[in-house]
Amino acid sequence: MAVYTEVSFEDLERLLERYDIGQPLSFKGIAEGIENSNFYLQTDRGAFILTLYEKRVHAEDLPFFIGLMEHLAERGVHCPLPVKTRDGTALVTLNRRNAAIVTFLTGIALRRPDAAHCASAARTLANLHKAQAGFALSRRNALGPSGWRPLAEAIHGADKIEDGLTALINGSLDELVTGWPAHLPAGVIHADFFPDNVLFVGNEVGGVIDFYFACNDAFVYDLAIMLNSWCFELDGSFNITKGQAVINAYRQQRPLSEEEIAALPVLMRGAALRFLLTRTYDWLNPDPNALVRPKDPREYAKKLRFHNKVRHAREYGL
Amino acid sequence: MAVYTEVSFEDLERLLERYDIGQPLSFKGIAEGIENSNFYLQTDRGAFILTLYEKRVHAEDLPFFIGLMEHLAERGVHCPLPVKTRDGTALVTLNRRNAAIVTFLTGIALRRPDAAHCASAARTLANLHKAQAGFALSRRNALGPSGWRPLAEAIHGADKIEDGLTALINGSLDELVTGWPAHLPAGVIHADFFPDNVLFVGNEVGGVIDFYFACNDAFVYDLAIMLNSWCFELDGSFNITKGQAVINAYRQQRPLSEEEIAALPVLMRGAALRFLLTRTYDWLNPDPNALVRPKDPREYAKKLRFHNKVRHAREYGL
Repeated sequence: MAVYTEVSFEDLERLLERYDIGQPLSFKGIAEGIENSNFYLQTDRGAFILTLYEKRVHAEDLPFFIGLMEHLAERGVHCPLPVKTRDGTALVTLNRRNAAIVTFLTGIALRRPDAAHCASAARTLANLHKAQAGFALSRRNALGPSGWRPLAEAIHGADKIEDGLTALINGSLDELVTGWPAHLPAGVIHADFFPDNVLFVGNEVGGVIDFYFACNDAFVYDLAIMLNSWCFELDGSFNITKGQAVINAYRQQRPLSEEEIAALPVLMRGAALRFLLTRTYDWLNPDPNALVRPKDPREYAKKLRFHNKVRHAREYGL
Repeated sequence: MAVYTEVSFEDLERLLERYDIGQPLSFKGIAEGIENSNFYLQTDRGAFILTLYEKRVHAEDLPFFIGLMEHLAERGVHCPLPVKTRDGTALVTLNRRNAAIVTFLTGIALRRPDAAHCASAARTLANLHKAQAGFALSRRNALGPSGWRPLAEAIHGADKIEDGLTALINGSLDELVTGWPAHLPAGVIHADFFPDNVLFVGNEVGGVIDFYFACNDAFVYDLAIMLNSWCFELDGSFNITKGQAVINAYRQQRPLSEEEIAALPVLMRGAALRFLLTRTYDWLNPDPNALVRPKDPREYAKKLRFHNKVRHAREYGL
């Protein structure tokens, strides 16, 4: 969420010679994205985002991310469309970074979406799950259950953040890793479908951004990530009205099977643990070059404790 | 050059109820400005910048800055125009910060302006000096000669940055403070007319931004700040072609008197010392909350050493 690598106008002019998108009129670094450098670019032909991929995004994953946005955009999902150079390539190199220009999406991310916004976003998520069908590439979820134990072992001193945090993590870890549901309907999921990444125009979704955690996993796990990030109030309570709005709107577009419904409580715990683990690690190991404050892991500790008492998907509004 | 205070969409919606500038379509934090929080705002009626003033900008100076932009914009200088609320006020409060919405200017700041760009920018500077006439408010230059000694005394350990830096500062200080020319033609100057703050559309200036150092001082001191920041090459050499372009273009719009020409060499040294002092102080006292790296003071040490050998304005291209 910042600019790590600077791009001068002269760098930009040289880059734009390779594209057919007009002359630059405005060019500004923007505070957006996970540890990438992002620039708003306006030309006489339209508005774009130039992204320079920093270290957290692995070069070998870029064809997956770029290809996925193209695949989804062609199938009606409002997401950034990678722009190709005259040579037909969407990935370029700029200032020793991999880089891409994508179309700019109008819309604003909401901090406090209401139930109607939740429903609109859930419909978009279900449509994304349908639209990904046929995408040729795949990417393993590095932050799925097999990645949790190494991450937990790399965390030292979690109890300094909150008393009992280590026990909470370890207590959930064994049960979730061994009992993790297999063979659920799967495909490419967004895997970071937070309110920050969904842009609204009025009450409807105008676009989905930030596909840099997308991977192959169970669709209902993506729904669990969404329920975790959209349906809790600031005070930590679960808003069942929003939960109902999300689940009902999702099911209207993509029905949930009995086995997906049965798996929801454990997936909710898993989704909470996944964000608890990365946030705890980042909190204890802040990157000195990072220009953003790490997010508070206690938010997800509270959510995990809530889920630990849930027995049935009904409690989420099903 | 970052976002220090966050503004949620809900904060924005509440703020926009007070204005008559349409519905928000895009809203993004941008990496721009000196320690203020800046946001790009697009509505169905146009593009704007929302600025939240952080600690470096004193509240009592805001009416001067806002009034100056209004005064200049009304007189044809392309600068951000403060937008008024329905109640007719341009200054508001948001998230416990003073804030203002101004019009967005198209154009791009150049890292390496050529002589034609220099000439266009110098014409704009001269026009700004003419357009400020009649502006009712005034503001003392806190970073003028009377401010240099306290700043120099607050600097400890300059020689850690570069051997001899303390001697360079102290050697220039006495001579410049005592010999500083008085009674030069004066008025409101920009005082930070660096390439970062001048936006180009093609080869012509599209707009001037960042008026938060503007103050009352000698016009030719503003020209000296511009020559210092536009006419040196990256290797530290002075580009006399650019110097000629700046001085000639400026004089076409606003003639320089004999006394202004005679004063130029000492003002060039003063301008270099002013930026050397603030950069040295900021380098040795980095703000832990700052999201930008301090600028290298050695750039201005090199410029000051160059000026110390200059005897006549001819050497700058007059």
